[in-house]
Amino acid sequence: MEGFGDRLAGAVREKGNPVCIGLDPRFDLLPSPLRQLALRTHGPSARAVATAFLEFNRAILDAVADFVPVCKPQVAFYEEYGAEGIGAFEKTIRYAQKKGLLVISDAKRGDIGSTAEAYAQAHIGGGGDIAGHAFDADAVTVNPYLGRDSIEPFLRVAADRGRGVLILVHTSNPGACDLQDLDAGGRPLYERVAEMVDELRGPIGASGLSNVGAVVGATYPDQARRLRRLMPSAPFLMPGYGKQGATAADAVAGFREDGSGAVVGSSRAVIFAYREEPYTRRHGEAGFAAAAREAAQRMVEELNGALKRR
Amino acid sequence: MEGFGDRLAGAVREKGNPVCIGLDPRFDLLPSPLRQLALRTHGPSARAVATAFLEFNRAILDAVADFVPVCKPQVAFYEEYGAEGIGAFEKTIRYAQKKGLLVISDAKRGDIGSTAEAYAQAHIGGGGDIAGHAFDADAVTVNPYLGRDSIEPFLRVAADRGRGVLILVHTSNPGACDLQDLDAGGRPLYERVAEMVDELRGPIGASGLSNVGAVVGATYPDQARRLRRLMPSAPFLMPGYGKQGATAADAVAGFREDGSGAVVGSSRAVIFAYREEPYTRRHGEAGFAAAAREAAQRMVEELNGALKRR
Repeated sequence: MEGFGDRLAGAVREKGNPVCIGLDPRFDLLPSPLRQLALRTHGPSARAVATAFLEFNRAILDAVADFVPVCKPQVAFYEEYGAEGIGAFEKTIRYAQKKGLLVISDAKRGDIGSTAEAYAQAHIGGGGDIAGHAFDADAVTVNPYLGRDSIEPFLRVAADRGRGVLILVHTSNPGACDLQDLDAGGRPLYERVAEMVDELRGPIGASGLSNVGAVVGATYPDQARRLRRLMPSAPFLMPGYGKQGATAADAVAGFREDGSGAVVGSSRAVIFAYREEPYTRRHGEAGFAAAAREAAQRMVEELNGALKRR
Repeated sequence: MEGFGDRLAGAVREKGNPVCIGLDPRFDLLPSPLRQLALRTHGPSARAVATAFLEFNRAILDAVADFVPVCKPQVAFYEEYGAEGIGAFEKTIRYAQKKGLLVISDAKRGDIGSTAEAYAQAHIGGGGDIAGHAFDADAVTVNPYLGRDSIEPFLRVAADRGRGVLILVHTSNPGACDLQDLDAGGRPLYERVAEMVDELRGPIGASGLSNVGAVVGATYPDQARRLRRLMPSAPFLMPGYGKQGATAADAVAGFREDGSGAVVGSSRAVIFAYREEPYTRRHGEAGFAAAAREAAQRMVEELNGALKRR
């Protein structure tokens, strides 16, 4: 069975870029025709929101699937609408996989062993149990604060099913420094986490990547460079490109020498491109998916350009 | 508006004990009549599991609501069954609140600011938005690894609605030591987190408790004593009693001098009591709720005894 590391490397090679689109819908930012239709059909309800989210995501996926290798729905934006929202999350994952994208469930879960097992089954598990897989994503993001025994259940499920586990090491937000940068015995805490990730990496695939990777904010390129040295075989998910302020030159800091090993995430700047110039002028509200395609293409050009210039 | 700290103190005072029942159902541990009925009605499906979970939780809540002040459903066990499971989670919270219990959503969420806002709305938010509240719990557990800006959205929603935010400081699992105990500038990391929790505490209610509390594993009493000094006004959720090995004497280490300020969590030892002696003999499988009641009563006696002996 091909592992997540190899599948990620294969998808990036095949599509020729390391772009990961964040599917993070918000009802008030959706195109108004889409919102109005859902409200007319379902009334002001969680179902209306979930219906609009799914339709929005499908249109975006249809528009980018031919060249984008990976997407990353953020569970929070679906969970906000309870069971209906989670239904849209499940269907988004199914649709993205059907369109040939790898899906990272951005859940940042972390809990004690027996509970972590349930989260692992929820996000990357499948079969064995009466109800089968819930989300069945290709990888899941995990929070390390509870320690190794909170991560190991994810690693077991990932190993069994060729899935990926991406552990938060240094996040993209300003608050990342509050705990992650604290000096922990002569090195910042996030480097200790990086060492743990490297120790837990398991087998390394033909691509040189393992199934156990790291979330490394593209907004902190110096840290990303150090972290690449500490975790040479870890696939990196690098969020923070676009609205959070990371440039293409920042984002490529976490890549391996040969330009592989990472995907760069952007959500708002791509999926809501239609709300900003020059996209509004070119595509209007109805052309939101075409705007997202164009914004994603621009991201491809910028990232591939920055990788060449390294 | 009464804040969570005061509401928690009031509930514990009124019911006369600090017990928090973890509602963490697992399909294979449910009484077989309940499982069989759900499977006959819905076939082997997520809906069958969700139906059985809800019926199980309702029976447990009916059996303990007259004397148990707080319950804590763990989202993971519901999330494992996708949208259907999350539906059972929502309905469990509604039912517990209707029966007069405070509900802590044990979610351990943590994400960058804009995403944390969505999680806060999901777990303790309500109204304002088109679809209103999703879970509308009285409090939520939060992971601090992403720093202050990942916690603040929860604090804002909590302050607006008199809800609680319980931040992971020192967890109950063996792996808690991996990161939380690392030396971070002369003090263990979890003490740095405790200082942050105390700084973020906001207004303190009539009970002496704020809305911003901490998760402190009952399995580490020495740490709990130190943490009580560092966070004098924080409500503590202390998991780990029962199956995880904490005794009543361990658990009371985190309480304030006057015996208030904390609730102690136990899930498996209470809700699955019917599977173990002496409860199996006394109640059988059909009497699972009565067994849970008896196990919870025993926990009340043990904790109140330990509080008196301090």
